[in-house]
Formats: sequence, structure tokens, C-alpha cells
Amino acid sequence: MSATNSLLHTLDQSSERHLQELIQWLRIPSISSDTSRKSEVEQAAKWVADKFDSAGIPNEIMATERHPMVFAQTPKIDGAPVVLVYGHYDVQPVEPLDQWISGPFEPTVRDGNLYARGATDDKGQVLTHIQSVCEAVAGGHPLPLQVKFLIEGEEEVGSENLERMLPELREQLACDCVVISDSGQYADGQPAITYGLRGIATYELRVDGPDQDLHSGSFGGAVMNPAVALCHLLSSMVDQEGRIQISGYYDNVRELSKSERQQWRALPQDDDSFARAIGVDQLFGEKGYTTDERRWARPTFDINGLTAGHQGEGVKTIIPATASAKISFRLVPDQDPRDLTAALQQHIDDHAVTGVRCTLKSDHGAPGMLADTDSRFVHAAIGAIEQAFGVKPVLIREGGSIPIVTQFQEVLDCDCLLLGWGLSDDNMHSPNEKFRVADYHRGIRASAILWEEIGKLNQTV
Amino acid sequence: MSATNSLLHTLDQSSERHLQELIQWLRIPSISSDTSRKSEVEQAAKWVADKFDSAGIPNEIMATERHPMVFAQTPKIDGAPVVLVYGHYDVQPVEPLDQWISGPFEPTVRDGNLYARGATDDKGQVLTHIQSVCEAVAGGHPLPLQVKFLIEGEEEVGSENLERMLPELREQLACDCVVISDSGQYADGQPAITYGLRGIATYELRVDGPDQDLHSGSFGGAVMNPAVALCHLLSSMVDQEGRIQISGYYDNVRELSKSERQQWRALPQDDDSFARAIGVDQLFGEKGYTTDERRWARPTFDINGLTAGHQGEGVKTIIPATASAKISFRLVPDQDPRDLTAALQQHIDDHAVTGVRCTLKSDHGAPGMLADTDSRFVHAAIGAIEQAFGVKPVLIREGGSIPIVTQFQEVLDCDCLLLGWGLSDDNMHSPNEKFRVADYHRGIRASAILWEEIGKLNQTV
Repeated sequence: MSATNSLLHTLDQSSERHLQELIQWLRIPSISSDTSRKSEVEQAAKWVADKFDSAGIPNEIMATERHPMVFAQTPKIDGAPVVLVYGHYDVQPVEPLDQWISGPFEPTVRDGNLYARGATDDKGQVLTHIQSVCEAVAGGHPLPLQVKFLIEGEEEVGSENLERMLPELREQLACDCVVISDSGQYADGQPAITYGLRGIATYELRVDGPDQDLHSGSFGGAVMNPAVALCHLLSSMVDQEGRIQISGYYDNVRELSKSERQQWRALPQDDDSFARAIGVDQLFGEKGYTTDERRWARPTFDINGLTAGHQGEGVKTIIPATASAKISFRLVPDQDPRDLTAALQQHIDDHAVTGVRCTLKSDHGAPGMLADTDSRFVHAAIGAIEQAFGVKPVLIREGGSIPIVTQFQEVLDCDCLLLGWGLSDDNMHSPNEKFRVADYHRGIRASAILWEEIGKLNQTV
Repeated sequence: MSATNSLLHTLDQSSERHLQELIQWLRIPSISSDTSRKSEVEQAAKWVADKFDSAGIPNEIMATERHPMVFAQTPKIDGAPVVLVYGHYDVQPVEPLDQWISGPFEPTVRDGNLYARGATDDKGQVLTHIQSVCEAVAGGHPLPLQVKFLIEGEEEVGSENLERMLPELREQLACDCVVISDSGQYADGQPAITYGLRGIATYELRVDGPDQDLHSGSFGGAVMNPAVALCHLLSSMVDQEGRIQISGYYDNVRELSKSERQQWRALPQDDDSFARAIGVDQLFGEKGYTTDERRWARPTFDINGLTAGHQGEGVKTIIPATASAKISFRLVPDQDPRDLTAALQQHIDDHAVTGVRCTLKSDHGAPGMLADTDSRFVHAAIGAIEQAFGVKPVLIREGGSIPIVTQFQEVLDCDCLLLGWGLSDDNMHSPNEKFRVADYHRGIRASAILWEEIGKLNQTV
């Protein structure tokens, strides 16, 4: 029995305990954006540290200006690769509470799924790697590489402290590859490795008109209505076909390669069931691209929120003094969020309207990410996932953004593996978040095999 | 000393008491839209009834399904005209409270103005007529006409019950002319008679997309964003020049007459100071019309409120499931709000967007009003106002809508006099509502003289 086979045997024997441990962790309401939950957030960090302690893995809870990070590492092995597992123990808010079938912090198994806030994002997913390494170390199964862990508590609030501290943590976090499980499989039964992410740029656009709300009878027709001006401005940013109208917006967009498009088109895409699942009659988007192409590799413009004037019941016939919008763009390689900010400001200036003042406030921006699909780590991961899931993973991109990934690549000069065990209907950020119990266990197995596969790399490179 | 001169003498003697009585009435927070204020609304109705009682004028508090109306009348005089004074004792909500210099229900005189919610809209204005008639009856000054009063408590919430009950009150309210003081002078020192009002049509427009808010990373580019669809739709309703794009919208608009335009252009309009007063750099509107023409006699489109997705602090990168807008149109003679509803629905159907559902909900509509500027009642009012204010009133229209006025004209088949004692900076519906104390007293005098002038009409017609 090889070291890995004996480890896999141990993992199988411990699966019920692994589930119970995840349930324990999920009971802690570590909502990072909720200042009243500060002690629960700390408790969730301590839970991870205790978990490492119990396996005899050296670790420390590192304070930040807001929520702590947990760092741990197995012993260095001369000449062997070093991997950094990144994940987060903080979770999204839980509103609207009345839509949860079981309480967000009362983890419940139904139909083979574990329901709780954080089940898939990200406690359940990051715990797969913690379990595989803890079992190996605690059980005396030799690991053929060094594994470091950085589990933070601010991912859901923008990872600001980690971003700021990253340069000074450069030595401590030094690695050949970052491994992150905070994404999804391509579909039920079809695991995936994600090699690309979109970037992001978010803004608040505000239009100010008169000093105060005006009576629309006495003043209507005499002044520009800020909400009308806002609608004109937002409408000018994208055409009816979904094509963004900001000058130069598509200039640096890296087009999809022929082979990429071919590979994606071979995936079992089904627009009708995709539309049904989210409750729309029909999908919509830029012509000439498939749904996956539009989601993963084309830049977008979205309005995330609109606010103006009277929002309550009934009628209040006013010209609102102010109207504002939260907007976001998903960017693709090689778009630079700073270029967008300048182009967007220019667009607003060019569309200036008499009688109102438009103010653009940039919130945060991060470029997209594209990893080498031919790297040795990808090959290692393909093997590990195929063995654990029984199906060869497909190579995909994702439409979301993990700004810290680009930071890791830049600061640590390392490869990056995004291995998602989740499913698209896992309700991340929504009520009834879930994680399939079988995928949790498969993820733990895949992780154990991955360490073995990566361990072989120092011999082959 | 004529009957009127002796009445005017009495009014002058009683001016301090008149002010104190208005202050008493203003202390009652009769916010008709606030269900928790029901007893205060009733208390304000009772205050009027008590006022009539104390003058010996027969009156009754008439229950409705919501807030009561107060009806009163002086004795019928054979062959003499009958006038109905209409007004309201209910007031607008007071938010935002922190912008009030003195409390909305702690009436305070500063710089010759009385500050309180309801000061000008409409307690202060309607009380001018109540005072003139009460003083006449209580002091034994014979009135040369019959005056009826209808003071309602639902004007600020749409006068629904009065509208519904009006046909059955036809006999009771029968009159030759309705007199309403719920509007304004043309400018400081320039009283006015309003002979035209705009109509109104209000709607809620809702755009529904996916079943729930979606992650803009995972789904952005794949589905139509309801907030984007809403902006496109609203933007399509009016062009950048302020010209409404709904098919047929201008078809029945009665153009201004040459003489009307000439008269209005003779008024002391000053766009710069108008803009400064409301805090905008520049006015805006349909080309080819002056500001007063646009405000009083041109139809408009306004967005009164916008709601979608994330409105709190910070970023939430979602595609909102729903976006909605409150919109209103001011109509002019001879536009029919029902035609607009049909045209608007057609416009929405014509601009239908893939992947979202648009729903239009019509709230309420009323046509505009245009009175005969050459009527005997207008001539009587010109004389009364000139004597009380020392300046001949100008004839104007107003941009606001008083739907009940058209109803009175239709159901009671009567003339209508809109005599506004307020000023444009009285902050109706806004914090720091006020009414100039001198104008209150001048209004009482003008009212007393008006009864005399109208009393003369039965001899001249």
C-alpha cells in the first residue's frame, strides 16, 4: 500500500468525522461585514487554528486591522515543491432570513446536500485541503511536498488587509503554486479546473440637480430631472444589443483563441435549462458569442443598484434632488481597470447634461487573470481530480473575480490552481447555500492525491 | 361706514387673534398619510368645526371611509350668488426632520414668516376665508351672498373619498363658484389669479428579470440586467432635449394663444434668479418656450423615484432581480390621461427587451383645467385682490394639478376661482414650510372684499 493509498484509506474511515467537523465550523456565524459578529469571526479563526493544533501542524493567528488570518505550514522538504492553500473562513450576510428552509447557522443535511451559510463559500471547500493535510500529518503519512495555508477572514469584504500586507508576507508565503478551492465544477458530474477569471471595476455614479426635491407640478418642465439624466447617461453606456459604448472599451480585450472556443463549444451547454434555472424566458447578450463565452471571456457592464426619489408605496410627485447608481464592469485580459476609469469619466464628460452635475466615484478595480493551461500543476491537478471524481476535469474560465489571485501571481511569482468543488446551484451569497456532501468527500480525496501528484513534479522537472 | 368697511375694521382689530388661531391649528399634526396620526387628523377637523360653532355658523363633521370632511354654510339669501370655499386641513409628511429650523408642529414666526407644516398648504390659506366669514357672521356684518365651506382631510393623499362622494353631495354643495386658496402669487408683491392647471398621470413601471439577484460575475453577460432594461426604457421616453417620445403624446395639446404668450412674457420672469433659488446652474426644457410656458402650459415627463438592487453603502456586485420606477406626466388641455395610459403601454410593448418582463401600473390621472379669464367671478376677484394687496393681480396658470377642481366643474357645473396667497419659496411639501404673516392678513381682507364684490354680481348679471 503506497503512502497515498494508505492515506486515502484513512480518509474513507474518517468521513463521518470530517462531516461533523465541517458542521461544527459552519455553526459559527462568521459574517465579516457585520461588526456585531466580531467575536464569532475570531471564533471561526480559532477553530481553524485548533484544527491544525490537533494534527500537530504549527500555525499562528495573525492579527490584521480588522479580522485575523490563520497561517499554518507543514515542514519544509528540501527540493520538494511548496504549495500555498488560500481560502477564507468568513461568510456572506444571510438576509433575507425568511427564505432559508433551515437556519443559515444550523447546518442540515437534506437529499445529500449540507445546507448552511459558508457550506460551499468557502468553509466546506477550503476544509477539504485542511482535512487531507491534517490526516496525513496526524496519521504519519509522509507528504512529498510542503503545504502552507493562509485562511483569511475578510474575503467577503474585499481582502483589503491581506492585499496591503501581502508584500511583507512575501517570504513567509513563498511557494511554487497557490491552490484555491472557492469556485465550482462545470456541471453536476463534470469537475473542472478554472484557468481564467474576469477582472472587475466598480463605481458609484451620482447625478445632482436642485438643492432639494422639487414639486413636479410647479417645476416640471423647467429643470433637468436628475433621475432622467441618470437614465440617459446609463443608457448611453451600453446599446440595446449589450455592446458597451464607452470609447476604447474593447481596445485591449484579448480575443478568445480558436482552440479555446472549440473546447468550450464541446462542453454540454444548454441555454434553455440555464435560463429556466434562473427564472428568465430567454438569455441575452452580445451577438456572436455563446453563453459561456459571454460569461467567462467577454467584458460586461451591469447596474448593481439604482436609487432616486420616492421609493415607498404610493405616489410622491417630485423631481428628486439626486439620483445615483452603483455600476460594475467585469473585465477580461488585457483590460486595465485604470484605463476604464479614465474612459468612463471621459464618457460622462462627453454626455454632460445641462442643469445637473455628474460625479463618478471609483470603488475598486482588479484586472482579469489567465493562467497557463499547460503548466505542470494543471497536469497534476487533472490527474488528481480524475482519480477522485472518476471523470477527467474540463478546463474552463469563470466570470467572477478573485482580485487576490492576481496579487498572489504578481507578488509571489507563482502558478495558480483554481479547483472548484461546488455546483452552480449551490446558492453562493443567497439563501439556502449548500455543498454536496459527496463532493466534500471527493474534494478531500482529490486534495490528498494532488499532494502526491505535485510531489512527483520535482522529479520530472 | 359700509358693511364691508366695518367688517374690515373688525378684521384689523382682530389680526393678532387671527394669527394665534392659525398657530393653534398648525400645532395639530394632521398628516393624512400617516395611519398613526388618525386621531390628530380628527382633532384638526374638530378644530374647524369648533371655529364655525364659535361664530354660530351651522356645520357638520362628515365621516368618510378614511378622514372626515367639515361642511359649513351661512344662511341662503334668495337671489344672491352661492360660493363654495374648498380647502383642506390635512398636511404632508415632515421628513427629513433634521432639516427643519423649528419643529414642523411648533409654529414659529421669524422675519415676518410663520414656519410650520401646513402654514401655506393649506391651513393658513383656507383659514383666510373662514376668518372673513366667521367675523362677518359673529359680528353681525351682513353677507351679500351665501358661503358654503368644504374642508377635507385627504387632499394630500388624493381626495379619493371626496371624489367618490361628490355626485351624492351635488345638492348640498350646489354653488355658482368654487373658491380655492391653495396656490401662490406670481411673485413677491405680485398677486395672481390662476385660471389654468395642468393635469396629471402617474405610473409605476416595473422590470422583472431573474427569480433572484444574481452574481454579476457568474451571470454578467448571460442575461439582461433589469436595471439596464429599465434605464433604456425610461431613456426612450424622452429625448435629450426634453421632448417626449411617446407616440401621439403631443396630438391633443392645446397650443398657447398668442395673447396668452404676450401676457406672460410681460411678467417679470428671470431665469437666472429662478435657477439660483432652486440651486441649479441652468434651467432646462423644451426649446421654443419660456420657463413659465414650460411650467404652466407644456406637458412633461418626470421620474419621481428609482429603485433597484443594492442601495446601501459599499459594493454588492449583483444583477438585481427587479428594477422599478415611479413616473409622472403633467398634462395640459386637451390631453386625456386615459389616452396616455394606452400610448405608454404601447411604447413599452414596442420597446420590449429580451429576457425581462415589463409591467405598467397606472396610479391616478386627471385632465388639466382651463377657466374662462373673462368670467364675472374673475372680475370680482381682480377687484378684491387689488383693494387688499394694493396691486392688480396678474392672470396666470400653474403647473401643479388639483384633480378635484375639474371634478367640481363637472359635477357642480360651476365657475372656479383659484386665489393663491402663497409665495413660490414657501417650501410646500418640503422642510421649513412657511406663510408670510402679512399675506395671511391680506388674504383675510381680500376674502372679505371678495364676498362684497361677488354680492354685487346678482345685480349686474
